Amino acid sequence: MSTLYYTLDNTVFRNFSFYAVASTLKMMIMSPLTIRQRFQKNAFANPEDIQPEKRKTIQPTTSDSDVERVRRNHLNDVENIIPFVLIGFGYIACNPNPTLALWHFRIFFFSRLFHTFAYQIPIRQPSRALSFLVGFVVTVSMAAQILFQVY
Amino acid sequence: MSTLYYTLDNTVFRNFSFYAVASTLKMMIMSPLTIRQRFQKNAFANPEDIQPEKRKTIQPTTSDSDVERVRRNHLNDVENIIPFVLIGFGYIACNPNPTLALWHFRIFFFSRLFHTFAYQIPIRQPSRALSFLVGFVVTVSMAAQILFQVY
Amino acid sequence: MSTLYYTLDNTVFRNFSFYAVASTLKMMIMSPLTIRQRFQKNAFANPEDIQPEKRKTIQPTTSDSDVERVRRNHLNDVENIIPFVLIGFGYIACNPNPTLALWHFRIFFFSRLFHTFAYQIPIRQPSRALSFLVGFVVTVSMAAQILFQVY
Repeated sequence: MSTLYYTLDNTVFRNFSFYAVASTLKMMIMSPLTIRQRFQKNAFANPEDIQPEKRKTIQPTTSDSDVERVRRNHLNDVENIIPFVLIGFGYIACNPNPTLALWHFRIFFFSRLFHTFAYQIPIRQPSRALSFLVGFVVTVSMAAQILFQVY
Repeated sequence: MSTLYYTLDNTVFRNFSFYAVASTLKMMIMSPLTIRQRFQKNAFANPEDIQPEKRKTIQPTTSDSDVERVRRNHLNDVENIIPFVLIGFGYIACNPNPTLALWHFRIFFFSRLFHTFAYQIPIRQPSRALSFLVGFVVTVSMAAQILFQVY
Repeated sequence: MSTLYYTLDNTVFRNFSFYAVASTLKMMIMSPLTIRQRFQKNAFANPEDIQPEKRKTIQPTTSDSDVERVRRNHLNDVENIIPFVLIGFGYIACNPNPTLALWHFRIFFFSRLFHTFAYQIPIRQPSRALSFLVGFVVTVSMAAQILFQVY
């Protein structure tokens, strides 16, 4: 019978679970960071979000530069971390070399972690561009291996 | 041999499939809601979307407050429902208690359903904030259980 | 024992892997397209992205119409391709007819490919609207089959 890949007994699946969850939590942290920035800058997108006593002095806004920086970071995570997790699920069925797979997951996670610091501090370019590129290449590498094995 | 979790014979997978699909469809409904709002307010993002006979009087816009409210709701779903489904897939491999798992899925789905009503009616804050928080905590709880078991 | 669906020996999973990866890569291509457009139009969202020697003459912007067109396309992919992949994973466990499943995957992928051309050339409406609708209906069709089998 065919081997069972989607189980915690499989090292690749186990390592993928760890880094996929860690990357997804990294992405989710952007939500509280956005909320914090909205309160610090009094920059709310909806009128009902403004505290009633402040409604006469504060208008809703969707163009505060600090809030939008966090939100662009969040959207960039959505556009990169979610494809990594989706493609990673398929990659497991290809039964890759466990060490090679682990380095794919590790490099991806740390590139996205660094990307966030590079975006939010911010660190001088091309730091953010390079960290984006590294994560992008890791995902494309897994995708290519799936296509190669499936075709 | 190791047990097979990703099959409809597994109650946890069966219940997850139901609530993950229901949550994803909830998210997808935001697309037709956006389109409806665009036609009601004549607020189109692209010039080619405006009916030819109206092109002299209507300009493309990306700042109509009613359209943007639906779109922010959609993006918030993307940022929360997709992580729930991704992490839920991994959670199944942890073989959680079926009743506990079912309540995770149920609470998540209904918190996001309520979130949409709170956003679109809108219902007074902190309704929307709390429904967001409940869904967020459910996803983090599943993530924590995966990390605990994998590590 | 129950059958194993999540393996490359299963034709449905194999075909899904191919089209899910192809659709995800289609979505990821929007990132380099955005970057290219940003450089062509000198329209950067962050001050640090502007080359130092141009910082006196160029201001950051998030409203360049050509850049925003690519970005709306990317977000539309996120809102449609990711649900297709998530629901497709569940659809496989329903053991659908392989030919029927293959046509779901094929039609979805080509509808989204055409959607991108319709958006970026742009081709006259309702080309883009129809290609969006076709992809949407395919995903809802898979979702309905899951709900029918699970309930």
